[in-house]
Amino acid sequence: MPRAVAGPEIERLIQLLARVPGLGPRSARRAALALIKKRESLMAPLAGAMDEVLGKISTCEVCGNMDVRNPCSVCTDETRDPTILVVVADVSDLWALERSGAVSARYHVLGGTLSPLDGVGPDDLNLAALVTRAHSGTITEVLIALGATVDGQTTAHYVTELLRDANVKVTRLAHGVPVGGELDYLDEGTLAAAIRARTTF
Amino acid sequence: MPRAVAGPEIERLIQLLARVPGLGPRSARRAALALIKKRESLMAPLAGAMDEVLGKISTCEVCGNMDVRNPCSVCTDETRDPTILVVVADVSDLWALERSGAVSARYHVLGGTLSPLDGVGPDDLNLAALVTRAHSGTITEVLIALGATVDGQTTAHYVTELLRDANVKVTRLAHGVPVGGELDYLDEGTLAAAIRARTTF
Repeated sequence: MPRAVAGPEIERLIQLLARVPGLGPRSARRAALALIKKRESLMAPLAGAMDEVLGKISTCEVCGNMDVRNPCSVCTDETRDPTILVVVADVSDLWALERSGAVSARYHVLGGTLSPLDGVGPDDLNLAALVTRAHSGTITEVLIALGATVDGQTTAHYVTELLRDANVKVTRLAHGVPVGGELDYLDEGTLAAAIRARTTF
Repeated sequence: MPRAVAGPEIERLIQLLARVPGLGPRSARRAALALIKKRESLMAPLAGAMDEVLGKISTCEVCGNMDVRNPCSVCTDETRDPTILVVVADVSDLWALERSGAVSARYHVLGGTLSPLDGVGPDDLNLAALVTRAHSGTITEVLIALGATVDGQTTAHYVTELLRDANVKVTRLAHGVPVGGELDYLDEGTLAAAIRARTTF
């Protein structure tokens, strides 16, 4: 255990930075030093941005996204197609789909996937609001964008059953070869799915 | 350019996080989301730690270290050997040497190295205070811990000349094979230095 180079306030800053995903104990030290050196141009604005987000952030009452406004920026964006609703497990999935830019729709964040092993049941997910939205009449397609895992697929089937009475088309993401992926690194399940869903050149 | 998933406050947080060393644009987005999710347990304490450091940090008037107290934690640490003064270019070097735990001494941070090409001359470095400290009578050894670069070695020679009149022994870090280093990846200069400075087994 090296002795403290700096006061406990700085050591605490390093420890907290080390808990940020992407930073480890070593890079947290480097980051802290950089923040201290650029305290006017980086640390002060960053602390200010955090305080601002902290003061405003909430979970969107419509879709479950997290944003500084409620309803969130996505739900209030009038340029999006109101007929498509994309169901995701987590806010991070919503952000990832938005980065792809492939769909301009509204979302519904479940807040997880059904997982009997982890004790996550239907009551733990944001499902009742999804059923209500699907019955609203505006939505014609519900795209279930959940991971291709056991829990993800279980949840997808459960959601499909829930929406049976709603007058909506339920779709899911295609399985296949990831863009840029090498065939010989892929598992058999993905390859089989890609062959089954093959398309004409 | 994907459309904004979240309000400008969150986008600004992501942009600022991307400027922290160790985080890039992609990991900044992940970090921001993690901070938002753990806003009570991580973001709020982190913003608080930054504000606390921001309010207290200053450059130590004795050695040039950066700390929340002045004189700094190192200068006021009475358990350190007061006779050895380690000269470093930057606060990051001070922190790196402290992590090694190999020396329990006081430091003097120059704030850079002489670099004619970058327009850094003797007046730009914290040299006058170093000469004063070396003449104080307490210090018997000045260990010059500067990088083995052209600028570092030029600065080391300059400092040695400056301290010629002071009654101190001037030493420098050993050159040699880095611990854990493979010989065949090392440059000839390092190998030659390691051979010249060889020690008895």
